[in-house]
Amino acid sequence: MAKPIIFLQREFRTEFLKKIQALAPDYLVQTTLSNDEVAQVEISVGWPKKFNDSLLASKQLKWVQSISAGVDSLPLKQFSENDILLSNGSGIHALSISEHIIGTLLSYYRGLNQAIKYQNKKEWVTDFVHYDQLAGKNLLVVGTGHIGQQLSKSIRSLGVNVYGINTTGHSAEGFIETYSIKNLTKIVTEMDIVVGILPGTADTYHIFNSDVFDQMKSSAMFVNVGRGNTVHTKELATALSNKQIAFAALDVFEEEPLPKDSPLWEIENLLITPHISGLTVDFQNKFMKIFLANLKSYLEKDALTINQVNLKNGY
Amino acid sequence: MAKPIIFLQREFRTEFLKKIQALAPDYLVQTTLSNDEVAQVEISVGWPKKFNDSLLASKQLKWVQSISAGVDSLPLKQFSENDILLSNGSGIHALSISEHIIGTLLSYYRGLNQAIKYQNKKEWVTDFVHYDQLAGKNLLVVGTGHIGQQLSKSIRSLGVNVYGINTTGHSAEGFIETYSIKNLTKIVTEMDIVVGILPGTADTYHIFNSDVFDQMKSSAMFVNVGRGNTVHTKELATALSNKQIAFAALDVFEEEPLPKDSPLWEIENLLITPHISGLTVDFQNKFMKIFLANLKSYLEKDALTINQVNLKNGY
Repeated sequence: MAKPIIFLQREFRTEFLKKIQALAPDYLVQTTLSNDEVAQVEISVGWPKKFNDSLLASKQLKWVQSISAGVDSLPLKQFSENDILLSNGSGIHALSISEHIIGTLLSYYRGLNQAIKYQNKKEWVTDFVHYDQLAGKNLLVVGTGHIGQQLSKSIRSLGVNVYGINTTGHSAEGFIETYSIKNLTKIVTEMDIVVGILPGTADTYHIFNSDVFDQMKSSAMFVNVGRGNTVHTKELATALSNKQIAFAALDVFEEEPLPKDSPLWEIENLLITPHISGLTVDFQNKFMKIFLANLKSYLEKDALTINQVNLKNGY
Repeated sequence: MAKPIIFLQREFRTEFLKKIQALAPDYLVQTTLSNDEVAQVEISVGWPKKFNDSLLASKQLKWVQSISAGVDSLPLKQFSENDILLSNGSGIHALSISEHIIGTLLSYYRGLNQAIKYQNKKEWVTDFVHYDQLAGKNLLVVGTGHIGQQLSKSIRSLGVNVYGINTTGHSAEGFIETYSIKNLTKIVTEMDIVVGILPGTADTYHIFNSDVFDQMKSSAMFVNVGRGNTVHTKELATALSNKQIAFAALDVFEEEPLPKDSPLWEIENLLITPHISGLTVDFQNKFMKIFLANLKSYLEKDALTINQVNLKNGY
């Protein structure tokens, strides 16, 4: 019988391929795949579009290690029915996203966004500079997972008071207080900054909507680095245009790439970044720490030790 | 004989005027000044252009409390000859400038500068995003005073390794190591980020020149928030255009406002901000903490307790 395959959707350095092979000597380790070989894939690193259907149809597939943290685009229901294990890349991007968020906050608070626009016009303008102090602000992290915890750790040391929201209000490391998502509209009234780091699930769809924006301070800033569809984009646009909230920074959108004719591009008090917050140096090292640990436990006891996704919750 | 005057060059809230008057009941406290009254001014808060010459000519002037940290535009030699005490506003702007610097670093490291330019063109561009990680970088603070120490304190907690340079290499709080300014060209070779926070003096004039830029890593970033003339602007422009260093952020310039025809405006890997890093919320409170403490000690024992400027060194 043909050997089972560990398929890697993207290239990794030879050192990592060797480590995988050493842990799993009975497997073929491949970064390319012919149609004939799909049925041999037992472990897939990434969820390659080209082979989605045939991988799902195969009885051989046992475990998918997602590269990204979000797995909302994967067929979780079928995974569950076929008893396919799923783990994600949560944590890899935490430091990058945390630095991205702090960058967007300070860009706004220190007038850098404005300065860049004026530089393009060769204009020295000091009259309308927006300046404020990050230290002392109240920040609400909606989604207290890896990224939220990293953000809290970093930004607390800049003098920011960090509060958290998650499904149940269970406590999480580094937050002054955590609340249940039910209290979102109540809690935002006290916050200077609201950061969305939520996965895309049925429960989080359009959770940031006018009910939330209406309750926020007019001086407040909203940042989203979770999933685009957690934000009701039209209602956010309205809140920004009406100055119900002062500023927003979006890295993710309901439709990506953001279409050329989207009215968002021109909103003065909105910073648009093209889904780049997770770009991270040293990705292979960070990812392989997760995958190799999971591979070891998978082979030894048919279980994953890091980042197993609950297929029902979707994260 | 007419009462001596404490002249405040800018408006302050009534609460502060009352505190000054309570400390100094024998003085007139004024925020406006007629030409006739100049000769009565004993204490000047700020150094008002309009009255520069007449204040200097007066034998009555005893103490100038500068509002800014930099005092290089004041006639220090004449102050010295006339036994005029001088104190500055050092420390007031430390937190703002520190946040500004961290903002410029993260704007560059997380591709926000690029994103803003693409947003203006309504373009979703992910291919050429510059991304890097601030955590783990080596940062050299040139000038280990109030601002340098605040920056060190804040940015260390983001995982940055902070080194310092000052005149003699004397130790300063929060730096892994401090070196004498003589070693500048040697030390920069190891640094990912070099931040200039130097006062404008004869010794610091054009201290950041091609000798320094030539030694820096091609991936390194240079930031200046000190005085504009500490940088040899033409040589920096050359270093940036030749990609000898990767990026610079300047908040101060040899000529301010930066003239419309300056070639700096168009340098792609340069962020220009219009001398805004020191803009600070709650300025009056921060400033009055210094002034009121100095006023008390001045009246009690003819001495200043905070931020007295050494008229020979100029800081």
